[in-house]
Amino acid sequence: MGPGPGNPYPEVMQALTRPVLGHLDPEFVALLDETCERLRQVFRTGNRLTVPLSGTGSAGMEAAFVNVVGPGDVVVIGVNGVFGERMCDVASRCGAEVVRVEEAWGKPIEPERLLGAHPSPKVIAVVHAETSTGVRNDIAPLGEGKGEALLLVDCVTSLGGIPVEADGWGVDIAYSGTQKCLGVPPGLAPITLSARAEERFVERSPSWYLDLRMIAAYAAVPGGTARTYHHTAPISMVYALHAGLGVLLEEGLDAVHERHRVCGEALHTGLEKLGLELLVAPSHRLPELTTVRVPAGVDEAGIRKALLERYGIEIGGGLGPLAGQIWRIGLMGHTARLRNVATLLGALEELLRP
Amino acid sequence: MGPGPGNPYPEVMQALTRPVLGHLDPEFVALLDETCERLRQVFRTGNRLTVPLSGTGSAGMEAAFVNVVGPGDVVVIGVNGVFGERMCDVASRCGAEVVRVEEAWGKPIEPERLLGAHPSPKVIAVVHAETSTGVRNDIAPLGEGKGEALLLVDCVTSLGGIPVEADGWGVDIAYSGTQKCLGVPPGLAPITLSARAEERFVERSPSWYLDLRMIAAYAAVPGGTARTYHHTAPISMVYALHAGLGVLLEEGLDAVHERHRVCGEALHTGLEKLGLELLVAPSHRLPELTTVRVPAGVDEAGIRKALLERYGIEIGGGLGPLAGQIWRIGLMGHTARLRNVATLLGALEELLRP
Repeated sequence: MGPGPGNPYPEVMQALTRPVLGHLDPEFVALLDETCERLRQVFRTGNRLTVPLSGTGSAGMEAAFVNVVGPGDVVVIGVNGVFGERMCDVASRCGAEVVRVEEAWGKPIEPERLLGAHPSPKVIAVVHAETSTGVRNDIAPLGEGKGEALLLVDCVTSLGGIPVEADGWGVDIAYSGTQKCLGVPPGLAPITLSARAEERFVERSPSWYLDLRMIAAYAAVPGGTARTYHHTAPISMVYALHAGLGVLLEEGLDAVHERHRVCGEALHTGLEKLGLELLVAPSHRLPELTTVRVPAGVDEAGIRKALLERYGIEIGGGLGPLAGQIWRIGLMGHTARLRNVATLLGALEELLRP
Repeated sequence: MGPGPGNPYPEVMQALTRPVLGHLDPEFVALLDETCERLRQVFRTGNRLTVPLSGTGSAGMEAAFVNVVGPGDVVVIGVNGVFGERMCDVASRCGAEVVRVEEAWGKPIEPERLLGAHPSPKVIAVVHAETSTGVRNDIAPLGEGKGEALLLVDCVTSLGGIPVEADGWGVDIAYSGTQKCLGVPPGLAPITLSARAEERFVERSPSWYLDLRMIAAYAAVPGGTARTYHHTAPISMVYALHAGLGVLLEEGLDAVHERHRVCGEALHTGLEKLGLELLVAPSHRLPELTTVRVPAGVDEAGIRKALLERYGIEIGGGLGPLAGQIWRIGLMGHTARLRNVATLLGALEELLRP
């Protein structure tokens, strides 16, 4: 119940043990194609270039930038937590002129501020669900107002937990990680790019490993036979993602979102009943990642340690300016169950009792 | 029995199913520390900065270059196969002035040519075991003659299959992949860097994801408590690598090398008995990756297809100038068993019989 990884679905753990095939084996590439198709359903997109990258969520972030941002390109970035900050670091390493739009940690960024930050950015980038603060930033208005810019969205903690409408919201580049609401161990970064984004690729990405033109020639040729080897796909992790997406789509994307919503609401209500204060305003809270203020006089790290040692429950601490100030509680994927909410609330009640 | 991935050790498949812990969980970081220590033993190095990177072998290659090579730096690269060629691509994206030392595919590169290619390179880079050709390039003389240069060696297909002496040979940077002779599924890139290499890091790597200063602050602090979160470690794959290295060290590094040697020799002898011709001269053949010429009039891809469909055996075809000319047969990690050699030779005899 930390900010991720969560507990993988049992079907995912089983899939990990499937015999390892070669990355050009016909059976494996069929499974890879099916995985990409399932990702399209979960991102709600028709983008051809929708693939799992061979790295964790942060590799998805890096791939999102290095393929479209070159020296001097203007990139507007929303910064209200660790991952917006990380975007600035990644973009500036590409040589971008970064325009920061800052907001207090725990508050959402107003879309108008992002849209008005520069007259003609190449990219507007924002984090959908800030794992460091539990805030949801609004995406749809950015797609409406983006003009010529590409809209780049970090969906690491949102995908599979709350609705993501890549095509419906006009998102050009979105990436995620497997270990949050997809219910799979960490290791892959699903990514999707619109044709519009592909048209504006830099001539040559500074990264060979994350060069999406080369990756697409191996991974995004559905039904095609002319696959060009790029690097060896992480076979077992692709099995795991395939299985996790299968569980999710069988339950139904709407039903999964509803399960996360119900669990999140139960947790929020329960925490407030314990007299605790939530960091984020109700309108922009995430059901899958709850941030709660540590009461005065309570040993923040001590409570986390006791939860882990006595109850076998991991929760996260705060990062950056929120270090020592908050706890972060995840209800992601298979972990988003009411019984987990009840267990945690019971444990917290025992530990916080005066 | 392709050029990798090979079949993982059974203990590795079991380790994949261990419950997923958080990347800052004390139990997990202890296991990560132990994994790094096991990697030091397998690389035969005392390097502090010895870690598994969160990507496949090619991510190891990229990390090896982006942390030490900046615009204008001279890099001498040996090119006698796909992976030497890939090094040139990666290095040139860093802005390096690349000095290529070419040799025919299937022949080893003379160390003197690499040492004499430029008076003062920052890096001399070469592939130890060329997966595309089955050739072993000599490393020890490069360490002796490198002078001020850093010696960078691709050990993707050598580590765990033939001796690698990172410290003994004066190697400054070496990386590998998990899916070859380590007997683990693909997904991680073990890497080791000398203090000398660390001293000559570029000021700021163009890659955030593969920034080894930041990665070291999370992964290479043995016994330390002050870990700085960088990205979420691929927990399950680290379990798998930990288990694979455990199997290898329990059998003993020398014994594992000997097993590969014996299997390779049996395969080489058997193939020649079938009237087939090996691509590489005996002195520089790899036991773990054998390349054999396709006899005139034989359907190269057809034989591979029949091996897969009738016998459940994967072998690889040639790449680049060797496409259609050779087969590539792997005997790596758990796959390096005499029974596999016998099965393949029997199948080939049946399929090639006139």
